[in-house]
Amino acid sequence: METRMQDRVVWFNGEFVPEREARLSIYDSSLMFGDMVFEMTRSFGGRQFKLREHLERLMAGVKMLRVPLTMTIDELERAVLDTVERNGGAMQADDEHRVMIDVSRGLLGIYRGRVDAPAGPNVIIADFPLRWTVAGMAELYERGVNGIIPSQRAIPAELLDPKVKNRSRVHYLMANIQVGNHTGADNRAILLDPDGFVAESTGDNVLVVRKGRIISPEGRNILRGISRAFVMEELAPRLGIPVDERNLTPYDVHTACEAFLVATPYCILPMVSLDGVPIGDGRPGPVYRRLLAAWGEEVGIDIAGQIRAWDAAPAPGGGDGPTAYRFR
Amino acid sequence: METRMQDRVVWFNGEFVPEREARLSIYDSSLMFGDMVFEMTRSFGGRQFKLREHLERLMAGVKMLRVPLTMTIDELERAVLDTVERNGGAMQADDEHRVMIDVSRGLLGIYRGRVDAPAGPNVIIADFPLRWTVAGMAELYERGVNGIIPSQRAIPAELLDPKVKNRSRVHYLMANIQVGNHTGADNRAILLDPDGFVAESTGDNVLVVRKGRIISPEGRNILRGISRAFVMEELAPRLGIPVDERNLTPYDVHTACEAFLVATPYCILPMVSLDGVPIGDGRPGPVYRRLLAAWGEEVGIDIAGQIRAWDAAPAPGGGDGPTAYRFR
Amino acid sequence: METRMQDRVVWFNGEFVPEREARLSIYDSSLMFGDMVFEMTRSFGGRQFKLREHLERLMAGVKMLRVPLTMTIDELERAVLDTVERNGGAMQADDEHRVMIDVSRGLLGIYRGRVDAPAGPNVIIADFPLRWTVAGMAELYERGVNGIIPSQRAIPAELLDPKVKNRSRVHYLMANIQVGNHTGADNRAILLDPDGFVAESTGDNVLVVRKGRIISPEGRNILRGISRAFVMEELAPRLGIPVDERNLTPYDVHTACEAFLVATPYCILPMVSLDGVPIGDGRPGPVYRRLLAAWGEEVGIDIAGQIRAWDAAPAPGGGDGPTAYRFR
Amino acid sequence: METRMQDRVVWFNGEFVPEREARLSIYDSSLMFGDMVFEMTRSFGGRQFKLREHLERLMAGVKMLRVPLTMTIDELERAVLDTVERNGGAMQADDEHRVMIDVSRGLLGIYRGRVDAPAGPNVIIADFPLRWTVAGMAELYERGVNGIIPSQRAIPAELLDPKVKNRSRVHYLMANIQVGNHTGADNRAILLDPDGFVAESTGDNVLVVRKGRIISPEGRNILRGISRAFVMEELAPRLGIPVDERNLTPYDVHTACEAFLVATPYCILPMVSLDGVPIGDGRPGPVYRRLLAAWGEEVGIDIAGQIRAWDAAPAPGGGDGPTAYRFR
Amino acid sequence: METRMQDRVVWFNGEFVPEREARLSIYDSSLMFGDMVFEMTRSFGGRQFKLREHLERLMAGVKMLRVPLTMTIDELERAVLDTVERNGGAMQADDEHRVMIDVSRGLLGIYRGRVDAPAGPNVIIADFPLRWTVAGMAELYERGVNGIIPSQRAIPAELLDPKVKNRSRVHYLMANIQVGNHTGADNRAILLDPDGFVAESTGDNVLVVRKGRIISPEGRNILRGISRAFVMEELAPRLGIPVDERNLTPYDVHTACEAFLVATPYCILPMVSLDGVPIGDGRPGPVYRRLLAAWGEEVGIDIAGQIRAWDAAPAPGGGDGPTAYRFR
Amino acid sequence: METRMQDRVVWFNGEFVPEREARLSIYDSSLMFGDMVFEMTRSFGGRQFKLREHLERLMAGVKMLRVPLTMTIDELERAVLDTVERNGGAMQADDEHRVMIDVSRGLLGIYRGRVDAPAGPNVIIADFPLRWTVAGMAELYERGVNGIIPSQRAIPAELLDPKVKNRSRVHYLMANIQVGNHTGADNRAILLDPDGFVAESTGDNVLVVRKGRIISPEGRNILRGISRAFVMEELAPRLGIPVDERNLTPYDVHTACEAFLVATPYCILPMVSLDGVPIGDGRPGPVYRRLLAAWGEEVGIDIAGQIRAWDAAPAPGGGDGPTAYRFR
Repeated sequence: METRMQDRVVWFNGEFVPEREARLSIYDSSLMFGDMVFEMTRSFGGRQFKLREHLERLMAGVKMLRVPLTMTIDELERAVLDTVERNGGAMQADDEHRVMIDVSRGLLGIYRGRVDAPAGPNVIIADFPLRWTVAGMAELYERGVNGIIPSQRAIPAELLDPKVKNRSRVHYLMANIQVGNHTGADNRAILLDPDGFVAESTGDNVLVVRKGRIISPEGRNILRGISRAFVMEELAPRLGIPVDERNLTPYDVHTACEAFLVATPYCILPMVSLDGVPIGDGRPGPVYRRLLAAWGEEVGIDIAGQIRAWDAAPAPGGGDGPTAYRFR
Repeated sequence: METRMQDRVVWFNGEFVPEREARLSIYDSSLMFGDMVFEMTRSFGGRQFKLREHLERLMAGVKMLRVPLTMTIDELERAVLDTVERNGGAMQADDEHRVMIDVSRGLLGIYRGRVDAPAGPNVIIADFPLRWTVAGMAELYERGVNGIIPSQRAIPAELLDPKVKNRSRVHYLMANIQVGNHTGADNRAILLDPDGFVAESTGDNVLVVRKGRIISPEGRNILRGISRAFVMEELAPRLGIPVDERNLTPYDVHTACEAFLVATPYCILPMVSLDGVPIGDGRPGPVYRRLLAAWGEEVGIDIAGQIRAWDAAPAPGGGDGPTAYRFR
Repeated sequence: METRMQDRVVWFNGEFVPEREARLSIYDSSLMFGDMVFEMTRSFGGRQFKLREHLERLMAGVKMLRVPLTMTIDELERAVLDTVERNGGAMQADDEHRVMIDVSRGLLGIYRGRVDAPAGPNVIIADFPLRWTVAGMAELYERGVNGIIPSQRAIPAELLDPKVKNRSRVHYLMANIQVGNHTGADNRAILLDPDGFVAESTGDNVLVVRKGRIISPEGRNILRGISRAFVMEELAPRLGIPVDERNLTPYDVHTACEAFLVATPYCILPMVSLDGVPIGDGRPGPVYRRLLAAWGEEVGIDIAGQIRAWDAAPAPGGGDGPTAYRFR
Repeated sequence: METRMQDRVVWFNGEFVPEREARLSIYDSSLMFGDMVFEMTRSFGGRQFKLREHLERLMAGVKMLRVPLTMTIDELERAVLDTVERNGGAMQADDEHRVMIDVSRGLLGIYRGRVDAPAGPNVIIADFPLRWTVAGMAELYERGVNGIIPSQRAIPAELLDPKVKNRSRVHYLMANIQVGNHTGADNRAILLDPDGFVAESTGDNVLVVRKGRIISPEGRNILRGISRAFVMEELAPRLGIPVDERNLTPYDVHTACEAFLVATPYCILPMVSLDGVPIGDGRPGPVYRRLLAAWGEEVGIDIAGQIRAWDAAPAPGGGDGPTAYRFR
Repeated sequence: METRMQDRVVWFNGEFVPEREARLSIYDSSLMFGDMVFEMTRSFGGRQFKLREHLERLMAGVKMLRVPLTMTIDELERAVLDTVERNGGAMQADDEHRVMIDVSRGLLGIYRGRVDAPAGPNVIIADFPLRWTVAGMAELYERGVNGIIPSQRAIPAELLDPKVKNRSRVHYLMANIQVGNHTGADNRAILLDPDGFVAESTGDNVLVVRKGRIISPEGRNILRGISRAFVMEELAPRLGIPVDERNLTPYDVHTACEAFLVATPYCILPMVSLDGVPIGDGRPGPVYRRLLAAWGEEVGIDIAGQIRAWDAAPAPGGGDGPTAYRFR
Repeated sequence: METRMQDRVVWFNGEFVPEREARLSIYDSSLMFGDMVFEMTRSFGGRQFKLREHLERLMAGVKMLRVPLTMTIDELERAVLDTVERNGGAMQADDEHRVMIDVSRGLLGIYRGRVDAPAGPNVIIADFPLRWTVAGMAELYERGVNGIIPSQRAIPAELLDPKVKNRSRVHYLMANIQVGNHTGADNRAILLDPDGFVAESTGDNVLVVRKGRIISPEGRNILRGISRAFVMEELAPRLGIPVDERNLTPYDVHTACEAFLVATPYCILPMVSLDGVPIGDGRPGPVYRRLLAAWGEEVGIDIAGQIRAWDAAPAPGGGDGPTAYRFR
């Protein structure tokens, strides 16, 4: 157990409970069907980034899955900010807040009124140090990662829509397990969809640079990431870099000038090779560098530097295996 | 809360805990990824039915998902039987034991040693009255159900294998939601796979009778149900009814002599129509009746009669919606 | 039989015949193979709308199916206008002319010279009151329709090209039959293609509004409607609304600001929900309203008002069932 | 017009009408949607062959398409036999009766009570000389046909089920058109389904012989022909030839010992090559000969000889093109 | 053997050898697996055209297939130019140089050090008269070619990427064989990909003109031709003709204003019909003419005229069959 | 170069040439298109095994690809036996003869009569020591291999039929390259077809044992191996082990009792794990052992023992990389 000034608390259906009490009944639909929509955010300098966009995506998922949630988006936002505030004393001074917002339909119908648990829906907001998630990643900003195309394919939207950020994702674990069987470090699963198009990583979006343009897979069989949108709709236009959505094949990645991954916790990382074959000259490229710098400016944080500082004094704990996937 | 002689307890990583304490951390992989394999059994006359077969399937899933479980199948069997015994006093005299066995990988790696929860894997064995699950179904043994082919397709095995009984199944909920939009009662989702073949219902296997033979979809994009195997490998041979596995299209169901669903809680129910069009003469057929009778003889229980008795004095509680799907 | 000033006549291979004589031999290829291309137009204030565009599409189909038609597009246009003129006295003063133009290859080869019917090709132009088609739709301009995604998929272009407006469309009926099994009124089939992309309704095109842009499915597995083209290439540009063609998934419709259907008889109708889930705020949106108004101005008719007037004094007759599909 | 002793009549909704009056309104659903199920039979020595099986398949289609037909199968059978009897005097002494039974839903809903035509359903039974259909085929019993795999694929059952014998089949015409562009005579379209499996010809089933066994494509993306069933379930067992259903690829046909087509009018014809490459030794094989002989014995007719006699004195008339497809 | 001033020589792993010695061991990976990447260029007025672009594509293929080539692109370019120079005396004065650059991995591993052949990789540069390849094509610049869609589909990129110009292409031969079974001359295979989209010919790219824009299939399941890029990125922009990449169906070609093929040896040829149905008015169109003229200006050669001159005095030799596919 | 008593010679279009002269022109269709069919056999005790079956498969491929070969199967057989005899003196006493038979269409048409090489077809028969192919494999008979499912899918038969043993197989190399990126030794690519069914390895067939039955993938998207047929049609029946062909998913392999690979050079090897997960108890199983023993008896050779002897005194030479794939 790492040292903490005070104990973290979790917002749980309107109350703050100790983290150890933040648990769900085994009869909950989330545990029965992976029936939960969620978001995971981060702060920069303690301030939540793109919180509203995260919550809008959450609400779209709630609607798609017909979860009878009565909280409004404003109430959710308020609860997140309260949770962050409440956990201020539980974090180290240099921590950033990683917030997880879970919405579950609640108890399966047959258990309602029969077992001793709230019927639902359940709304849970947890807050913990971002440094856990990004531990060991500092050097990847310079060294880059290697993409690996596993045998596991992305499930296409018509079967299980990845645009609804939900918990039915054991196939992501399978992809990570397959990648774990490869030689080399810093590997990352790059999922193809059943048409053979590049989809996404198991938690990250992929972007490539070709002929001076940033190109993203079409927003079809992927989660439409908040970081992806930030790069494509804000940072890149600001830097005068044109952006396209297209069907991308592995060839397009192999012959790209640059490629990178984007995700909320680390923002952006260079992908310098695919299946071991260098992309471009096999080193982080200029577009990546400009985006990382502009992102840092935007949020007032040296993004890689902050992680470097954390890695210099790593938090104790943290496990292994496919659920711990972190570019090692 | 229904009346109970004593409180039900749940086997939780080797200890018995009150049911209300049978909860999993929000950082558990099962809640993060739907990363849990499970089984749900039933008893006949208090005696677990095909428990070993259920546990063998569970162990196959554990292996496929690389869950680092250390318990053996014998230990699991022992724990199930202990749990049933321990809950004897918490059940009414005429109850049957519905046992749920969950195996979760445990805490995601990044939370291990950091949050106050066991690292995992987690093994959980819960036991509750079967009457909850089958409430209201007594009359269906005579009236039959209507299959509905929803727009939602079964996810094929190469993307997310239904033969591994896992919790990444929010698409089953989507199918139930779609069926819920149809007129009529006693509707049941009959999923097609992406090739247009009949796969399964959201928790039941489909069988049809054509020219005196029982035909099942090939065991490919379906869970290979224990009840399905019991019918195909034991009951039918005993009754001299030949059995085939084939690719089935809706036409084959529409033009079948009979169709039925099989599942652990209710054993077998006639499907008398598909999308509102009668199958055969639109009434429960002779093969169904022979199978139901033979099943009852085998286990020494009047299967429909038992449920009829429960329905005459329904248990309080039980909710609504897609998670409560029970042919109403 | 509704009251008529005079009897309607049909242009039939160059002659006008009474409507009851407008029949085709059971040996005609159209009845044998669904081997007929056709168009259905409407008038505004008695003047045919986009007649030339309809006929150009007809001629493309004639070419694709290798129908040995000898009439030119100019001759067809002339015949349509003659038919409309000839039926003027058979219509009520406030009627609009719904014209159907059928081209059939004619008698199957083996029957030529053997049965007592013209060898073909057959060209048939019929004219009847538009009010029949739009009966009961007046209130939908304010109430909107609910899209339903049936299990039936659109047949993709490589198997049976919907861009050739032909009569091999029993799968549209199947879709309507499936939708007819749903609760609620004003439902409308929204077909997905086998890739899971939104295609079209069974006779209407779908458009959505996202971030201020009108988006249409790519013109691939859909009929490229004349009304669709009018909105995308004329009305929208005139109103300064940008237009895109893209692959659309149900998620894109669910999370759109607005959605609407377009088709020749009613022009444009709001689709306010999909599978019962509200689109936007669940009410007709501003882009829809602007398009409807601009369309009315363009043709000099209060489009919804005209139908409202007809609905106030409905024509007798009109049947039921999947072939009568009209949002009821 | 060929010479006839008396005029042929058609059973039309319960009445006999002259053939020239056997026509359907242009507003009929069959002409609007290809919405018609049908059968085409033949006689041997004047006696209808497998009439009951044809009518059972017809009724299955009626059910699948939800045509509100009130006639029973017995009434249909009676009407067919009456029609044949009634047309006895209209046939030459050596003719066989080719009977076509059409069932259409009838007028589209919006035209009911508005146009001067029966509402429907329409049941039509026509009878004409089989010699029209088989004209010119006599020599093929010895010379065989050449299969050609066109670009057009069979539409799979999940999109438009070929097992429902319906009139939405303009894609069959497309296949015939494509085959018509090939060199050589006696060509016949062999459709692959989208998985690349051999499906059927445009009106005939394909069977091959491998290692002494007759193999048929699985009964999935094909019409399950009455002749096919007769060969597989009656003739072959009687001759001691084992029969299988399997997924067949072109390789399996190319490397087969024999291949043949079966269909109602001509019964069975050898397919001696595929895309110009000989099958076996490129000549009709022994299994084909045994089946043809046994078939003839069963029905008391020299099947090829009868057609040879007709070809010696061909009936006048008969046209050309893709609708006249008859191995020329 | 045609008359030559001197013998042609081939650059073979750094040495010039007589053409007859330019052979590869039967144990070479290229002969074992089709494991060879290659390019084929041409000169205009003796000067290599787009040589660098060809070599860049070659190097991308080398990288994708992990061929351990040590030569740099500059060295390759030098070797090509040397080979051309060296063969100057072996060509007639009006010849253009057709250069073939092959890179093979070399001997299969098990044969290395065991059979008497260089281990590899092998780099081979051959040079021969372009007139061989384009013999008989002069008249096609005015008459155009007929596209034929064969049954053989293009292999999609996820299975065998056509963007890597390699020698595993026996399916192209199959397509040519199928097209060879069609009536008519000047036929050319137009491959669809498995989605039914127009891909490419067996060595040429397809472009169409619709509404004044040049449209190419998306660069996905096609070789991204050097000529294609030259038209789309240089010639068309220079002429002010807009260019798009889109998914194209046969309907889009059938209803296009113009269509043409582009390839290195002949540059551009009109495709005036598809499956025998005229495209536009069935004659070479204005966009084609402008492109051909501009291309000629760009390279200082009357492209069609040069071939016309060669055809007037054809080179002896040249064979037949699917490997000789040249529009005859 | 290893020590040889005399030089090996190769049968080349009817003549024996030294191995170093067994080369093909760079203009040969085999080098241009991978357009070559071939077989590779082995001897037991110097006697060719199943030679006739290999040649029959070769001839089927020749027919499918329309290679205008004039040699008969008897002549081919004679030539093979002559080649073996002729090379007797070039082999060590304990060698077995690995014979490769190549048939190429020959020079591309445009080069015929123009370059100094035989027009073709080319028939080449080479003979070399089997020990090269099986070097290092002795211990695998006890240790088994680990199957790995790479991202590369098998190309399905409708696009490029693996049943035609041809040289367009660079995708096999890609699969080997991908497997080479995995940790562990003795890995072997197990290709799935695009439907997710187990197809084959890159040169071996896969068989599994379930419930006492040997199960093979359906013979669809695989080469139908001679060894596979020997096991399924001869050895297994002789041992009383039932055999089925079915669609196999990875789950079926993971949960099998045993799995093994079969191929001509090594006969049969146990596959003891798939993606690192043990199959059965992770050790060679009894069915494997019985088959290996029976095979050895049949051919009078201790199959594993022979290889063990060779491994004890390995032949010099032999390279590395994806073309040298041999379980290391």
